[in-house]
Amino acid sequence: MQAIIPVNLPENSYNIAICAGSLNQLGTTLKPLNLGKKILLVSNPEIFNHYGETVINSLETALFQTATHTIPAGETYKTLDSIAKIYHTALENRLERSSTMVALGGGVVGDMTGFAAATWLRGINFVQVPTSLLAMVDAAIGGKTGVNHPQGKNLIGAFYQPRLVFIDPLVLKTLPVREFRAGMAEVIKYAIIWDQDLFTHLEEAPSLDNLSSLSAALLQRIITNSCQAKADVVGKDEKEAGLRAILNYGHTIGHAVESLTGYSVINHGEAVAIGMVAAGEIAVKLGMWTQEEAKRQNILIEKTGLPTKIPSNLATQAIIDTLATDKKVKAGKVRFILPTQIGKVTIIDNVSSELLFQVIEELK
Amino acid sequence: MQAIIPVNLPENSYNIAICAGSLNQLGTTLKPLNLGKKILLVSNPEIFNHYGETVINSLETALFQTATHTIPAGETYKTLDSIAKIYHTALENRLERSSTMVALGGGVVGDMTGFAAATWLRGINFVQVPTSLLAMVDAAIGGKTGVNHPQGKNLIGAFYQPRLVFIDPLVLKTLPVREFRAGMAEVIKYAIIWDQDLFTHLEEAPSLDNLSSLSAALLQRIITNSCQAKADVVGKDEKEAGLRAILNYGHTIGHAVESLTGYSVINHGEAVAIGMVAAGEIAVKLGMWTQEEAKRQNILIEKTGLPTKIPSNLATQAIIDTLATDKKVKAGKVRFILPTQIGKVTIIDNVSSELLFQVIEELK
Repeated sequence: MQAIIPVNLPENSYNIAICAGSLNQLGTTLKPLNLGKKILLVSNPEIFNHYGETVINSLETALFQTATHTIPAGETYKTLDSIAKIYHTALENRLERSSTMVALGGGVVGDMTGFAAATWLRGINFVQVPTSLLAMVDAAIGGKTGVNHPQGKNLIGAFYQPRLVFIDPLVLKTLPVREFRAGMAEVIKYAIIWDQDLFTHLEEAPSLDNLSSLSAALLQRIITNSCQAKADVVGKDEKEAGLRAILNYGHTIGHAVESLTGYSVINHGEAVAIGMVAAGEIAVKLGMWTQEEAKRQNILIEKTGLPTKIPSNLATQAIIDTLATDKKVKAGKVRFILPTQIGKVTIIDNVSSELLFQVIEELK
Repeated sequence: MQAIIPVNLPENSYNIAICAGSLNQLGTTLKPLNLGKKILLVSNPEIFNHYGETVINSLETALFQTATHTIPAGETYKTLDSIAKIYHTALENRLERSSTMVALGGGVVGDMTGFAAATWLRGINFVQVPTSLLAMVDAAIGGKTGVNHPQGKNLIGAFYQPRLVFIDPLVLKTLPVREFRAGMAEVIKYAIIWDQDLFTHLEEAPSLDNLSSLSAALLQRIITNSCQAKADVVGKDEKEAGLRAILNYGHTIGHAVESLTGYSVINHGEAVAIGMVAAGEIAVKLGMWTQEEAKRQNILIEKTGLPTKIPSNLATQAIIDTLATDKKVKAGKVRFILPTQIGKVTIIDNVSSELLFQVIEELK
C-alpha cells in the first residue's frame, strides 16, 4: 500500500509519501530532489535509538554526507535555546545553503528542525520524517515551524515548507499508546471538519484505542485521508489567512488547557479532544449543531480512549483569560471553529464569555 | 523631491518611498496599508532620542497604538538574545498577527526587527524606516533579516519582506561621517555592478566624503538610483538563487575582513570598500577587467574617504580560511563577483587560492 499526496502551493509545492516499510528507502527517495550533499539529521535520543541506524544507512548508501543532532524528548525542550544548539551543530558541520535538515521524530522535533532550517543561512532544505501519528497527520504537513515562548506555545516560528514529508506507518509500532491516541484526536478532527466518510469508517471500526487493534488497511486509510484533508486545506490557504483556521477546531480551548497545565500533564491530542467536546457543546448551545451529532463525536473520542473532561483543578476564568493571548485572537476577539454537521465547520468570533463560562463549568 | 520605487516580487511586492522631510508623515503613509492597530517601534537609544518623538507623534496622530523597544546600538547586540527581548516586549503589548513592527534605525535595527517580525506568531507586518545611508540603499530593501552567530555574521535569519520602506533623507544629518561613508561604499557598489550613469555622476561630484558637501539633488539621486538598482536585482531574484549574488560584490573578502576584526574595528561599508578593491584586482589579474577602470573605481573609493587597504595585522591565510564559512559558499567553492566593465559584473567560483593569496598580500 502506497500513497503520494501532493500539497499544492503557489510556491514550494511538495509531496507527502506514505508507504509501510519504506524507511530504508529514504535515501533513494531523497536523491532526485536536489537536496545538496550534506544532511543534518535531527532527532530525539529514543527515536534515534529505534530508527537512526536504518535512516543513516539509507542516507549514506545514497551517498549523502550525514551528521546527527539529538534534542532531549519533550515539549519543555522546544525552546530558542534548543534551536541555538542545532545552529551550533550546523556550523560545526559547515552546512551550506544547498544542504538539508531532516527531522526524524514527532511534532516537537519536526517543528524545531523546520524552524532551524527556515532560519539557518536564511533558509536551507528541510525534510520531515514524522514518527508519531500526530506528526504524520498534522504537525509535519503545512509548513508551521517554531518553538514555544515561556509564556505561550508556538509564539515564535515561521511558515516554512518541507521539500518532502516521508511517512512509514510501521514506525508507529514503537509509539506509546497514549501518544497514538493523541494522534487519533487530530484524525477525528479531520473527520469532523472535512471528511464525513472518514468519520463513518472510524465509527465502524471495532476498536480504535490502540495501534494493534487497527488493520493495516485502516491505518493506511486513516493516515492517507487525514493527510489529504490537511493538504486540501493548506493548499487553499498556506498562511492561515482564512480557511486554514478550521484546522484549529478543538484547539482554542485545547491550547488554553494545554498551556495552563504546563504542556506536560495533558498532551496536545488530549487537549484537542477536550477542546472538540467543548467546541461541539458551544455549537449545540448556539443551535448550530445537533445534539445527536455532537454525541456521536463524543462517543468516538471516548472510543479512542481520549479524555472528554476539562481538569477540574483549572479555574474557569483562568482558561478564559488564557484564550486572550492565543495567536488566533484577531482585533481582541477569540475565534471559535464550530461544527454545523459532521464534515463541516464554520468560524465564529462572537461567542459570549457567559456561554464560554457555562460550557467550561459543565465539562469539568 | 519625491520618488516611489516599487519592488516587484511574485508575492509580497512593496514600495520604497523616498521624500526629504517626510518623517512626520509616516503615520498617514502607513494608514492605508492595513497594518492593524498596534505598532511596536524598534530603535536604538540614540536614534530614538533624535527621531522617536516625531515618529510616535506621527503614528499616534494616525491613531496607531504605539509601544517602543530599544536595543543598544551596534553589531555586538545583533544576537538571538536581543531578538528574545523584542519577543518579550511583543508579548507584553499583546501584538497580534495583524500588528506591525516598525524598524527605526540603521541596518542592525532593521535586520533584527525584520527577523523578530518574521518569527513572532510566524510572521507579522513589518515596516522599515532606515536612518543610515547604508540601511537606506541596502539593508532595508530586499527582505534579508537576521542576527549574527558568535562565529559568523548573519548566519541566522530569514527572507522576509517589509510592507514599506520609508526613507526621509533629511535624517542623515545626524549620521556620523564615518557611517555616511560606509553607506557610500554600497552606493559605489551599485554603480559598479549595475549603473554606469550613477558612477559618472559620482565621479563628477566635487566632493563625496561627507553629507554636507552633497547637494540635495545629488543626495536624492544617490539614494533613488541605489534603491532602484537594488529593487531591480531583488525583483528578478528574491531569494538569492542567482542574479542577486551580484549584490555581494566586494562582500566576499569584505565579510572575512569584517569577521576577523570582530565587526567593530572596521565597519561593514569599509569592509565592502576594501573587498571591492580586492575583487577589482582579482578581475584585473584574471584579465577580465581593465586596469584603468579598476583604478577609476579605487579613486572613487578614496574620494569618499573609504579605506582601500586590508589591515596588515590580518593573516592572509586566516582571511582565506574564513571565506570557507561564508554563506555564499556552494559545494565548497567560494564565489566571487567580479567586474567586467563599470556597470557590469560576472560570477566566478574558480579563483585559485594562489591568486587570492597574492591579491590579499598586495593590498596590505
